[in-house]
Amino acid sequence: MRTPLSEVGEFGFIDRINRLMISRPEGIIQGIGDDASVFEPPSGSVLLITTDLLVEGVHFLVESTSLRLLGRKSLAVNLSDMAAMGAEPLDAYVSLAVPEKLSLEDLEELYEGLREMAWEHRVNILGGDTTRSGGPLVINVALTGCSPKEQVVFRSGAGPGDFIYVTGTLGDAGAGLDLLLRGGGWPNEKSRFLLEAHLNPKPQVLEGRFLAGRGFPTSMMDLSDGLASDLRRICERSGVGALVMEEAIPLSDALRQYALEFGLNPLSLALGGGEDYCLLLTVPAQRGPEVERAFEGEFGKPIWRIGKITAEPQMLFLSREGRSLPLPKGGWDAFSCPQR
Amino acid sequence: MRTPLSEVGEFGFIDRINRLMISRPEGIIQGIGDDASVFEPPSGSVLLITTDLLVEGVHFLVESTSLRLLGRKSLAVNLSDMAAMGAEPLDAYVSLAVPEKLSLEDLEELYEGLREMAWEHRVNILGGDTTRSGGPLVINVALTGCSPKEQVVFRSGAGPGDFIYVTGTLGDAGAGLDLLLRGGGWPNEKSRFLLEAHLNPKPQVLEGRFLAGRGFPTSMMDLSDGLASDLRRICERSGVGALVMEEAIPLSDALRQYALEFGLNPLSLALGGGEDYCLLLTVPAQRGPEVERAFEGEFGKPIWRIGKITAEPQMLFLSREGRSLPLPKGGWDAFSCPQR
Repeated sequence: MRTPLSEVGEFGFIDRINRLMISRPEGIIQGIGDDASVFEPPSGSVLLITTDLLVEGVHFLVESTSLRLLGRKSLAVNLSDMAAMGAEPLDAYVSLAVPEKLSLEDLEELYEGLREMAWEHRVNILGGDTTRSGGPLVINVALTGCSPKEQVVFRSGAGPGDFIYVTGTLGDAGAGLDLLLRGGGWPNEKSRFLLEAHLNPKPQVLEGRFLAGRGFPTSMMDLSDGLASDLRRICERSGVGALVMEEAIPLSDALRQYALEFGLNPLSLALGGGEDYCLLLTVPAQRGPEVERAFEGEFGKPIWRIGKITAEPQMLFLSREGRSLPLPKGGWDAFSCPQR
Repeated sequence: MRTPLSEVGEFGFIDRINRLMISRPEGIIQGIGDDASVFEPPSGSVLLITTDLLVEGVHFLVESTSLRLLGRKSLAVNLSDMAAMGAEPLDAYVSLAVPEKLSLEDLEELYEGLREMAWEHRVNILGGDTTRSGGPLVINVALTGCSPKEQVVFRSGAGPGDFIYVTGTLGDAGAGLDLLLRGGGWPNEKSRFLLEAHLNPKPQVLEGRFLAGRGFPTSMMDLSDGLASDLRRICERSGVGALVMEEAIPLSDALRQYALEFGLNPLSLALGGGEDYCLLLTVPAQRGPEVERAFEGEFGKPIWRIGKITAEPQMLFLSREGRSLPLPKGGWDAFSCPQR
């Protein structure tokens, strides 16, 4: 079915999607349908807001994803930011600029994905804006969240001697993107895992809240631009340096096998591939054993220690052969990268 | 000066604009620079959020505005939504998708306009996202606000017999747009007034708060799509109808003269031109004289009574000749209108 959007109009479309948008009604006074949404902030909490803009041709290709997965991902990347603060997500606001090639059914599929991800995390979709685009599809999601004030985790608290942890294997999404750009031809049962990491990332909201709730992290952020670039941001804001051990970087079997098959360096994908959407955090060394036990006990999967924070502001990389090198730069810059 | 954005990069740009973004520091725990902003909600208030997406070629033409005015307007349209709820604006989140034709200096001019409007209303710019666009310039602003719970004004409270008011002359912005689309040639001292109404609208935040704070409005919204279309929304949500008197619709001298000169119907511009960004509200009839006196006393300008709410759900229009007609449809629909 292909219904042109001009047939139902902006308000007709809003009426159609404006059901099932509230998955957590507590405190919501007004959702979609007025000049602004209105809600009662959770008592005793501070509020958080994050916002992410996804542009067709820059962040995604409509041809190589489904609109349902695109809807899921555009909320997931914001949920991941909320996870990185250790906060609980509340409400999402979705703005769309829609090119004429998309039909009413396409947009409904996009909202189906948004709604799935929203319900999985008890997030309401409380507002937004929908309009035409003469160019690419553009999706902006703003997401609110809340947290007890003393549990919010910033990027700026890392101290010398802290252990550095990540909560998932790195580089899988980068390999998935690489595979897509090659046309998807890798008849291996592991290709699904890599494609899924790129197209359908799982924001680690529970992990972020668990870690923050126990007061483990001195600093935390989500791995969206690649370890090399993201760790640098924690170090800059904290006024410290870091030493990362090559042998400790967690790589999945799928990534190793993929890199071997296509002659790629798995480490480059892990350091600079980006979009891993797991968490990067620092924990005081004396609490290292405790966080490792607690995390594994809660989630049945490990948290990986990949290095430690240093007082000197350099970013160093200790290779498998025992050589100490500057940590390669790299990572994702929306203005500089030619195409993604 | 033309510095390509790729030269400074996304983070270089953020560092450059990330000064003077906080005009009201109370309660702000973290602004731009982490995974999310963090703030302490004002105690005893409910929170409001509104969001608006502006797309080049749909909502504006880069060629016929300055980037400073575009920055002002993209925040102004959100401030106008907050005004329409009777709330106090708090913090703005600005997302941009930037085409390559724009330079660093262009973006700084856009932010200069955003910042001016923000400071005029004591609004902080606490976050956002900046990325490349392969197509048009896209600007999304999300704005938070707060209000005592009992003072928030919705669209749904209009009751039969209520007087209908507007807080400014209608159609000026529509005439300004018409003039721009004709190439701007109208050597009349009043052209500036019409162009200013379109390019640099003044959100009526103080007016909205004043009216809501005194408990006058039973319903309120901002006039963004044109009286015919916006009044219909109040009536639909309130389950009532309306009777609008032609002779009561406030038209500026500039609009009358412009319409005369170009053979246009000033009433069409007033009913369907849109973007007036003044307030449309309903007030119980017995409080009519009081609101008229109080508003004029506070702001030194009139509030205009243009009709009344009826129990029957039709939208009627009483012409100057005494004929009662259906209120013409019309107004702005982002998916249907060919070009604006």
